[in-house]
Amino acid sequence: MLNGFFQPKSVAVIGASRNPNKVGHVILKNLLESFKGLVYPVNPNADEILGRKVYPSVLEIKEKVDTAIIAVPAKVVLKVVEECGKKGIRYLLMITSGFGEIGNYDLSKKLLRLLKKYNLLCLGPNILGTLDTRSGFDSLFLPRDRMERPKTGNISFITQSGAVGSAILDLTASEGYGFAKFVSYGNALQIDESDLLEYLGKDKETKIICMYIEGVKDGKKFLKIAKKVAKKKPIIVVKGGVTKAGSKATLSHTGSLAGSAEVYKGVFRQAGIIQADSLEEMFEIAKILDKSIKPKGDGIQVITNGGGHGILCADAIVKSGLKMAKLSKKTVKYLKKIFPSNVIIRNPMDLLGDATDERYKLAIEACLKDKNIDILLVVLLYQTPLVSENIVDILIEANKKKIKPIIVVSTGGDLTKPIRKKLEENDIPCYLFPKNAVRAIRELVRYYLF
Amino acid sequence: MLNGFFQPKSVAVIGASRNPNKVGHVILKNLLESFKGLVYPVNPNADEILGRKVYPSVLEIKEKVDTAIIAVPAKVVLKVVEECGKKGIRYLLMITSGFGEIGNYDLSKKLLRLLKKYNLLCLGPNILGTLDTRSGFDSLFLPRDRMERPKTGNISFITQSGAVGSAILDLTASEGYGFAKFVSYGNALQIDESDLLEYLGKDKETKIICMYIEGVKDGKKFLKIAKKVAKKKPIIVVKGGVTKAGSKATLSHTGSLAGSAEVYKGVFRQAGIIQADSLEEMFEIAKILDKSIKPKGDGIQVITNGGGHGILCADAIVKSGLKMAKLSKKTVKYLKKIFPSNVIIRNPMDLLGDATDERYKLAIEACLKDKNIDILLVVLLYQTPLVSENIVDILIEANKKKIKPIIVVSTGGDLTKPIRKKLEENDIPCYLFPKNAVRAIRELVRYYLF
Repeated sequence: MLNGFFQPKSVAVIGASRNPNKVGHVILKNLLESFKGLVYPVNPNADEILGRKVYPSVLEIKEKVDTAIIAVPAKVVLKVVEECGKKGIRYLLMITSGFGEIGNYDLSKKLLRLLKKYNLLCLGPNILGTLDTRSGFDSLFLPRDRMERPKTGNISFITQSGAVGSAILDLTASEGYGFAKFVSYGNALQIDESDLLEYLGKDKETKIICMYIEGVKDGKKFLKIAKKVAKKKPIIVVKGGVTKAGSKATLSHTGSLAGSAEVYKGVFRQAGIIQADSLEEMFEIAKILDKSIKPKGDGIQVITNGGGHGILCADAIVKSGLKMAKLSKKTVKYLKKIFPSNVIIRNPMDLLGDATDERYKLAIEACLKDKNIDILLVVLLYQTPLVSENIVDILIEANKKKIKPIIVVSTGGDLTKPIRKKLEENDIPCYLFPKNAVRAIRELVRYYLF
Repeated sequence: MLNGFFQPKSVAVIGASRNPNKVGHVILKNLLESFKGLVYPVNPNADEILGRKVYPSVLEIKEKVDTAIIAVPAKVVLKVVEECGKKGIRYLLMITSGFGEIGNYDLSKKLLRLLKKYNLLCLGPNILGTLDTRSGFDSLFLPRDRMERPKTGNISFITQSGAVGSAILDLTASEGYGFAKFVSYGNALQIDESDLLEYLGKDKETKIICMYIEGVKDGKKFLKIAKKVAKKKPIIVVKGGVTKAGSKATLSHTGSLAGSAEVYKGVFRQAGIIQADSLEEMFEIAKILDKSIKPKGDGIQVITNGGGHGILCADAIVKSGLKMAKLSKKTVKYLKKIFPSNVIIRNPMDLLGDATDERYKLAIEACLKDKNIDILLVVLLYQTPLVSENIVDILIEANKKKIKPIIVVSTGGDLTKPIRKKLEENDIPCYLFPKNAVRAIRELVRYYLF
């Protein structure tokens, strides 16, 4: 169990620093601000940092310590690890870099020997850290005014690259994504992507697993674990280094042998992993799998107040190999009776630019009842003045019934952001553009139906 | 010349209304707020609206009127147009709907007859309106608290669908895109997409033309005009209705025969038009063509402070058929001398997570000098604390020299938005993700080099 990397009861910050620009200061500050457990700063050259008593070594701490975050220069790492071993600390988060990634294999070997000697579990070296939104354990070495933290949710993200991880966390946090756990695993000297995948597979707080990987350390192990986990929850992967130029660069980045793109593609498919083509796509897919219920089939009905958007949705649906649903005769008859004659009752259903909240409500209710329809793709262009804020509640009410997946496309700027945010907070996945919504729906359908 | 739709000296708003929910009120209000010319509200049942004298008919206005915005019910349209003809108004913006798009071809025919009789130029019917950011002429019938207006710039956007237009205007405005002119042409009863294309082709304020079209009215005319215009400035098109389902929907939307996707693709290629796959892509391409200088070749050097992002850039570049540049020996030698030994001086060049502004500056300067490099793709992950706000000025300074195109990828949330905004205000196109940046660079290269 890797719980000590996410929800320890007590943690030592080795290399805690008074200097606000140092990694050891930032980590301590973050922990003090959000972590619910005990925190012990360690530094032989300081007495007090951020109002906390500082210990010269972990050996001076009397209480039990579960986890150590190590942010000291590479040259003193071995000494510090030895002390952790002696103290009986089991989990090491090795922020320190300067190992295999710069060719210092000797240091890596020595570290590995110590890990074995004391039966330690070590994440890294060369990592950004971990984040657990429930325990508040935040070992990320980036300050909060540079990287926003996401709110509590169901997505966990494993990333080999710390920078990719930090940039994505910052972006998704500000877009309102909810995370369970985040982990950067760097050089994967001991604990690798497969171990983390296995752990998150069993983690009850994790519903969706996203991964950015450059290489897999042990292909057989990965395939075996991924197969098992993918049966329980969706895994979405972005693989860096799928071209020769990219793959060459992975070698100097995390020391990974990227391997051929085709081989990876095959492994992912075999394991039941969803391979996304970009970071953007990965999180767009994660969102729909997180929020949406299981569709009963792949027939999509588009409802729109903008004809052009309806057409673009239809194009995207057909291009993706998904199906445009065909409204039942009963639904058509009913809607023809209650709607103005110029409303286009077909697929896409065009409620027109003068669509009111009420018109949306009637259309959505009719489509939820229609057995020909499996999924509702609702285009909501909030620029037209006859839809009001109430449309949001209408959509949320309809979605709460959990009859069919409802996905929203809402193109617009800052004025429309609160609309999308409220919908998503109520489990309706929203997308800015038809193409992105349909790409996500395709993966939703594939995940549940194929 | 269609100048009267964008920069008239005087305009009558026929159907001006006291009711703030009515289109005729919104348009009047928008004009009064931003238009620099003369505005005459027209309504037989009101004396004063928004503090302005109201005329019962355009015939009662003594001064010359260039343009009429018509926002009256369909049943009185012909009377109103007749009066415009008699008054000598040449330009009609026909907001009113209820013509061919609902099968009322008779009304369309009668309108066409009047246009001929009085030699009138008519945009629409069934349009959202037009916007000219320089004259402040804003005939869009959507209120500003529902749809943000873009700032002055070089992009003009022709859209058949008003709703696509409004959603995109709102989004791009809030993202800081600069527009010259916007025009929604609806049913295109008289003035069609080709006329507008020809006009914007000659318009000095328009540097880039974006188009959302569902069908082309006269293929030969379009091809002839597009060929001519594309030689002078880039045209980027999104075609709605490229599948059978989408194309069927265009018929009821704007009455367009969408035609086969392949035929359109061929026409666009022949004309030298860039066909974008989505609205998002269209504006990402518009941005790079608007801001970037002409590249001398297609060799791209990636500079990054995050290894993962470097790899994703390299993957995207190779997949797009673009070239990874090869640093000259001289550059490598120079940078090896001045940089710490762990900095990776290759392509991608990884300045590492502890990269400072200064390190970026040195790398960028060296690459600008290196003749092996044509384009700089700079990844700037602002989450790492050793880059400061000064990096923005360093990039702007480098870009001002206009030696090579500099494109930035900066992944992040609200904290990083001001960075991207300032860079773009200084003509450095920014993208959230490697894939999107590279897709845009591909079109930049194609436009200038092939």
